[in-house]
Amino acid sequence: MKWRKKQKLENEIIYFDNAASTYVYDEVIDYVNLINKDFYANSSSSHFLGISSYAKFKAHKETLCDILHIKPSSLIFTSGGAESNNFALKGIAFANYLKNSNIVISAYEHPTIRNTAKYLEKFGFEIRICPLKNDSNLDIDILKTMIDEKTILLSTAHVCSELGTLTDIQKISSLVKSINPRCYYHVDAVQSFGKFHINLSDLNNIDMMSFSSHKIHGPKGVGALYIKPKTNIDPFICGSVDAGLRAGTINLSGICGFTKASEIIYSNIEKKYEHTKKLNQYLIDNLTALDIELKINTPLESSPYIINIAFKDIKSEVLLNALSKRNICVSSGSACASKSKVSETLKAMNLSKDYIEGAIRLSFSDKNTIKEIDIFIQNLKELIPKLKLFVRR
Amino acid sequence: MKWRKKQKLENEIIYFDNAASTYVYDEVIDYVNLINKDFYANSSSSHFLGISSYAKFKAHKETLCDILHIKPSSLIFTSGGAESNNFALKGIAFANYLKNSNIVISAYEHPTIRNTAKYLEKFGFEIRICPLKNDSNLDIDILKTMIDEKTILLSTAHVCSELGTLTDIQKISSLVKSINPRCYYHVDAVQSFGKFHINLSDLNNIDMMSFSSHKIHGPKGVGALYIKPKTNIDPFICGSVDAGLRAGTINLSGICGFTKASEIIYSNIEKKYEHTKKLNQYLIDNLTALDIELKINTPLESSPYIINIAFKDIKSEVLLNALSKRNICVSSGSACASKSKVSETLKAMNLSKDYIEGAIRLSFSDKNTIKEIDIFIQNLKELIPKLKLFVRR
Repeated sequence: MKWRKKQKLENEIIYFDNAASTYVYDEVIDYVNLINKDFYANSSSSHFLGISSYAKFKAHKETLCDILHIKPSSLIFTSGGAESNNFALKGIAFANYLKNSNIVISAYEHPTIRNTAKYLEKFGFEIRICPLKNDSNLDIDILKTMIDEKTILLSTAHVCSELGTLTDIQKISSLVKSINPRCYYHVDAVQSFGKFHINLSDLNNIDMMSFSSHKIHGPKGVGALYIKPKTNIDPFICGSVDAGLRAGTINLSGICGFTKASEIIYSNIEKKYEHTKKLNQYLIDNLTALDIELKINTPLESSPYIINIAFKDIKSEVLLNALSKRNICVSSGSACASKSKVSETLKAMNLSKDYIEGAIRLSFSDKNTIKEIDIFIQNLKELIPKLKLFVRR
Repeated sequence: MKWRKKQKLENEIIYFDNAASTYVYDEVIDYVNLINKDFYANSSSSHFLGISSYAKFKAHKETLCDILHIKPSSLIFTSGGAESNNFALKGIAFANYLKNSNIVISAYEHPTIRNTAKYLEKFGFEIRICPLKNDSNLDIDILKTMIDEKTILLSTAHVCSELGTLTDIQKISSLVKSINPRCYYHVDAVQSFGKFHINLSDLNNIDMMSFSSHKIHGPKGVGALYIKPKTNIDPFICGSVDAGLRAGTINLSGICGFTKASEIIYSNIEKKYEHTKKLNQYLIDNLTALDIELKINTPLESSPYIINIAFKDIKSEVLLNALSKRNICVSSGSACASKSKVSETLKAMNLSKDYIEGAIRLSFSDKNTIKEIDIFIQNLKELIPKLKLFVRR
């Protein structure tokens, strides 16, 4: 691989786009390999090879469920976070259709929530989007007024993929049930799983939660959806009766890779969290010391793994490309929304016109270092004055 | 791996369950490995690593589209055949809803078609199931009467997963359009792709086609759906506008593995087909020479890769388990329906009571040999008389 050689020779790629996707752990790569070789039988098959595949599946599912403190019957593997989010919203909507019913989401949802909700409008659901406060946190006072007896579902991100905003899911889950006990609450935990402890046995008022593998150093194409027992939800992929809510041959190597990555990432999660917090604080300290007009969009109460910074009179795509040429990978929002002009989340923040197009996102993993932050800051110093010249006034 | 050692030592596993899942080609395993290592960036990301991932994706998609003779814009990668089938049916149903509209399927559809159609009944669609003739082929004369001006979709398997029945999709596609030009035609090609040449540029009246990777020695968790340009279909996984009809981070290693397997399997498809035909004929010749009451359910016009045999007064699960103990892997129908008592397809064949519970399926790959067929026949001779004793009269 030409590209890989280049990567090795220069040895200076700085990858600050871990909220878009992460490198795959070596142990996970090897394990996926082994499963692809040795466990090729369909885990639904009744012969001994099928039984072997099923046993592998069952053991790994239990590992993941232990991490989440749930029973294996409450977890369904999907093809990723996007499917999990679609599954939760469409599954609840189609199973609980009532005339004039509504669905509430936050203004900082991922496009797979926002646009799924929008899609459901054609089936007659009213979609209510809860705005953000000036500090880009969810406006809980307004949220209270949006949920009523016709609300069948509330969906919020645990950590906003673009800003890193941390949602108090415990508090919101109690709030929603106190207003309407029949309203389901779904949490998109794609950006928090593997970064925070998630004990679902303590989060009784949460009915569903979405997870993704490739955000935590697992393979792509795998995710999961937690569904609390007795939740009234439609299947997302219909098939045989035994398949339950999600038919399709079990993606064994993907699932084993995902659960292996979960084990690894949770093995010393506190250490990784502290390291990331240090990086994040070091970056903020250095940014504020710069003689550059910028605004940190990420609020105080946030995940240290994500930081969103807007530069005055800069086009984010131009900055991103200039950094990319210097082997520094950042994002101009969530990767999934990267080609759209301005993200809906940033719009909801009411950023002023001279800042809104200049927002970039940095997102960290355990491999990132203080030295990399230094290099990033040094490059900003060099680039920002030059790039300002290219902005049309 | 204890299990693998056992496999290697005994070196006598006979795997006749290739319609459920196939071993993964060595080159595919290595390639998946390489992609997981070197191309971890999200192909939606705008930096150079994301661009590398996207270039890889684009090149592989083109390879697969060349095999199918379609434009890349007509193909969407999914998480597998089950998703592709659900996507086609729900996507068409939700986009083309009309009062009193109906959907026609065959009586030998896979559960992911049959039960998706059944699910759509709750949205007001009428589902019509076209019966089989006595030879277990589709009854075209009845099919003609089932399609009318309110039919929005016809869906048939190209090759029936349980029986191997081959559908004349060219003929049916012309038929359906001659009756109702606005009716869409979807073909489930999960069991035919990689076994037959499929040139979609010659199949103008086919609007959609489903494919699966793990049935052709590719990784699990990947598939595709062909959608003819201008087809009015709803998205299956909603997300960013750029994601089109199927959002979610591109499963690059899965897609690369799938396309690599497609290239390999189509490289000498005629030779593989002839080999399989020989195996199939050899099996039939030997079965008919046996002094055992049996019925070959697979009709003459069928794929040589699948054969369904019913034994009189035998429980298929009992025979399957006995064969499994002797390291011979067969199926009692489609793997996806294996835990259900009697498959809907066999019911539609009107098999007599003393045969219907004794049907097993053998499905081949290029690795199967004449010697394996001999061993299978020898084991049948020993097992069938013994197992008949266990059947309650």
